[in-house]
Amino acid sequence: MSIQLSKISTLPPDDRKKKSTRKKAAKLQVRIGELARILAAEAKKSLLIVLQGMDASGKDGATRKVFSGVNPSICNVHSFKKPTDEEFGHDFLWRVHKVAPRAGTIQIFNRSHYEDVLIQRVHNWIDMDTVHKRFEHINNFERLLQDRGTVVLKFYLHVSKEAQLERLNERKTMAHKFWKHNPNDFKEREHWDSYMEAYEDCFKHCGPDIPWNIIPSDENFNKEYLIAEKVVEALEAMDLKWPDLKE
Amino acid sequence: MSIQLSKISTLPPDDRKKKSTRKKAAKLQVRIGELARILAAEAKKSLLIVLQGMDASGKDGATRKVFSGVNPSICNVHSFKKPTDEEFGHDFLWRVHKVAPRAGTIQIFNRSHYEDVLIQRVHNWIDMDTVHKRFEHINNFERLLQDRGTVVLKFYLHVSKEAQLERLNERKTMAHKFWKHNPNDFKEREHWDSYMEAYEDCFKHCGPDIPWNIIPSDENFNKEYLIAEKVVEALEAMDLKWPDLKE
Repeated sequence: MSIQLSKISTLPPDDRKKKSTRKKAAKLQVRIGELARILAAEAKKSLLIVLQGMDASGKDGATRKVFSGVNPSICNVHSFKKPTDEEFGHDFLWRVHKVAPRAGTIQIFNRSHYEDVLIQRVHNWIDMDTVHKRFEHINNFERLLQDRGTVVLKFYLHVSKEAQLERLNERKTMAHKFWKHNPNDFKEREHWDSYMEAYEDCFKHCGPDIPWNIIPSDENFNKEYLIAEKVVEALEAMDLKWPDLKE
Repeated sequence: MSIQLSKISTLPPDDRKKKSTRKKAAKLQVRIGELARILAAEAKKSLLIVLQGMDASGKDGATRKVFSGVNPSICNVHSFKKPTDEEFGHDFLWRVHKVAPRAGTIQIFNRSHYEDVLIQRVHNWIDMDTVHKRFEHINNFERLLQDRGTVVLKFYLHVSKEAQLERLNERKTMAHKFWKHNPNDFKEREHWDSYMEAYEDCFKHCGPDIPWNIIPSDENFNKEYLIAEKVVEALEAMDLKWPDLKE
């Protein structure tokens, strides 16, 4: 799908009010917990949530708020950091495939295999030929998971450059956010436009059968509500069933 | 490539003599050890050997004879058995990808991802639509490894039905082979023709860019020589270099 991020608002629609939206999101959160129990009992399919977005776009918060209702024994989060030497010694999907969800579970990727066509591209560590090969490998990989019964839900948390700056600054002024402060985030921010271009290419080349969901994320209540809604939709479409009694 | 196994001899050519061939194979074995040292030092590329064949076709022996000259710290063998529950809970390539070779190493697969389109197909545990989807996934997977610098060398150890029977019987009469005896191998043998058909389909659909090597394997000396020759060829074609001094 052809998407221009600069043309998509990072804000909620005017008529979406915080209080009522939070209420709706809370209900969805409970519903996710219920559906996840059936997913686990049935143990046939799985759900992979891919969370991407710029620094401070709210990936951690989304995970906390949307999936708190799920039994942690069937829901796992994997954060992808800089690859280790061992990981660099393999193809870029090796470390990703290892942590793909098992049937009956939800796996959340905080960052993902898309970093290999984002940060690596923006810094010119790889050429565009490699980027396009990787797009193909990513599509093949996601189809492989899909064929095994994994639903892949991809989210881009869309924040404005201004909202990001505000949040990064909060990390230097609010004591309970100090631990998140990383001076390098301010540097990385200088590549904003290149990142937007790289993301737009991901949306274009890695879909449409497994599409991206662009989530306006300047307001957390809006972001959490929209993600929760998509997750419930996806789980309901999986047509999960409590298994019959095996005698 | 379109191959009819019944038309390919399982025997060596008449003029290939045992003694002189073993001598040549021994030299190749030493050469493999030398080249593997450079592969490890360079630590850029890797080699994946896929060994497939019917029961008693000599996969273990081939591993022992061809790779004995290689430092075991850079050469590993992975035997694929019946998938565990954990493995069945993922796509069929999950357990395979995990043990793909790291740069600078040789990985030998004793059986492989091809079992998922062989035994599973022969016993009708999967339908032909799934078989063809898996062929595509296998091709994508091997290309992914190749793009990272892994050379994939696939061998089919071609034995006759008679030679197999003789070897299976030896496992019931020779004390040092008792441990290999499995009554189920005699049952599996009844599906010989289905296996041949399934193999021929693998050769046809999973190539030709990463082709299969059909190795006449009724005579071990011939099998070992042919495999060693291919491995040396592959390693030499990788253009391995001792790294420059880093000061």
